Order: sequence, then structure tokens, then C-alpha cells
Amino acid sequence: MPLTLHAQLQADCHMLGMTGDCILLLHKNALIPWFILVPDTAEKELFKLGAEHQNRIQTSINSLAHFVEQQFKTDKLNIATIGNIVSQLHIHIIGRFTDDFCWPAPVWGQAGSADYTEGKLQNIKQALLDKKLIE
Amino acid sequence: MPLTLHAQLQADCHMLGMTGDCILLLHKNALIPWFILVPDTAEKELFKLGAEHQNRIQTSINSLAHFVEQQFKTDKLNIATIGNIVSQLHIHIIGRFTDDFCWPAPVWGQAGSADYTEGKLQNIKQALLDKKLIE
Repeated sequence: MPLTLHAQLQADCHMLGMTGDCILLLHKNALIPWFILVPDTAEKELFKLGAEHQNRIQTSINSLAHFVEQQFKTDKLNIATIGNIVSQLHIHIIGRFTDDFCWPAPVWGQAGSADYTEGKLQNIKQALLDKKLIE
Repeated sequence: MPLTLHAQLQADCHMLGMTGDCILLLHKNALIPWFILVPDTAEKELFKLGAEHQNRIQTSINSLAHFVEQQFKTDKLNIATIGNIVSQLHIHIIGRFTDDFCWPAPVWGQAGSADYTEGKLQNIKQALLDKKLIE
């Protein structure tokens, strides 16, 4: 079965590509670099996946986190599996700045949003391609 | 250097014991089963730890998450590293219920709190000891 994406994730995010067997998304809120990794599984909890699958996902999380920190010169990373509203397993990898729109609060549910320009979106895709983080 | 705990974590949490080389804390808000794992490191980001250390911590996260789900019959786990306010690396392992005080919002910054009774706290410690999750 091919990996299909929950309608809410489709609505909230730009598609960036595949990283390993995960879909990599970019949240449409351009105020912060907010990436979402969607593993290829019907399981809803990361901790219930097998060790080998967890390790593969952890490797992708680590690579993405390093990318976000280096590319956007972030001050802190917030990495989380919540899934209270969208049950499809997805991992938030969010770059934060000490002067961003809702620092130091977590971003979920916070008011404030901005759209990506097509140019900025393409720059992010190209940087991910250059680092071989998406294909 | 022994593992010392950030003053805010000390103020917000009950000490449960050591799980591996992590301190295991229970957030004082008894409305939800909210555990916090504090690894023995000065590094602020989980993704920057070496693979072996990350794997050990992941094993502790998995064990705790299974415990929370089984012990409290939770509907969802929220697992996160935020650290915007308390910079000492700590991992939230939070059991959620579809009828809890702030479902489906994430718990950070939400109003609503209740204290643990001494009996309930001891029950949790005993259950962790029985499962050999703390020593």
C-alpha cells in the first residue's frame, strides 16, 4: 500500500519530497521553519514501531534537525510526536528563535502565520536536495 | 560530575528515581500522567548526542511510554523535547485521554492543575519499581 497522507496534513503543509521512506512536509506557516516527517506506517505511536524502523526514523530526524539548525541558524529545536488531532503518525521538527512570533511557548495552537513565497519554498527544496535529504 | 537538576524541574516535579542514567520525574499536575526523563548530559539537544547514547535514551522512552499507556489506559502519548524555557535536556512523556482537561490541545501552558495525594504518588513509584523501570 502506498503511503497516503491525512487530509489535514495535506491542507496544512507543502510537500517537499521523500526522505528515506518518510514523506517530508513543510508547514505552511512561514514564520518559523516547521518540518513534519511522516513515516510509512499505519501505527500511530512511534514507540510501538520495531527497533530497526525506529532507528531509521531517528536517523532522518537527526539529519533534518541538523539541517534546520544550520540552514536557518535557529536557537532551539522542538521535536515532538503529538497526534491528538491528526492520528497519522507524524513527527514535528521545528526550528525556534528567541525572537520568533510565540517564543518561548510551543507553536501548536498559537495565532500568527505567514505564507511562503514560491522563491523561498524553492530555496528550501534546493537546499534539501543539495544535502541529499530529499529525493 | 553528578547529574544536577534545573531548579524549575525541581520545582515543577516529583522525583521518582533513576531509570538507566536518566532522572525520572513526575510533573506535579496530577490531571494527566506526565513523566519527564532527564538524561545525564550537558548537551541541550537530543539529536546531538552520540548514537549509542541516543539509543539508550530511546530505549528508556519506549519503556516509559509503554508503561504509561498500560498503567493509565491512556488514549494517546505525547512525546517531546521542547526546552525553550528550561534548557537542560529533558523529554516529556505525557499520557493523554480524549476527555482530559485540555484535549486535544498540547498540555504546555494550559491552565488546570491538581495535586497528587501521597498515596497516588507512592502507587506510581511502586508500579515503576515492580516493572523495574526505576531503581
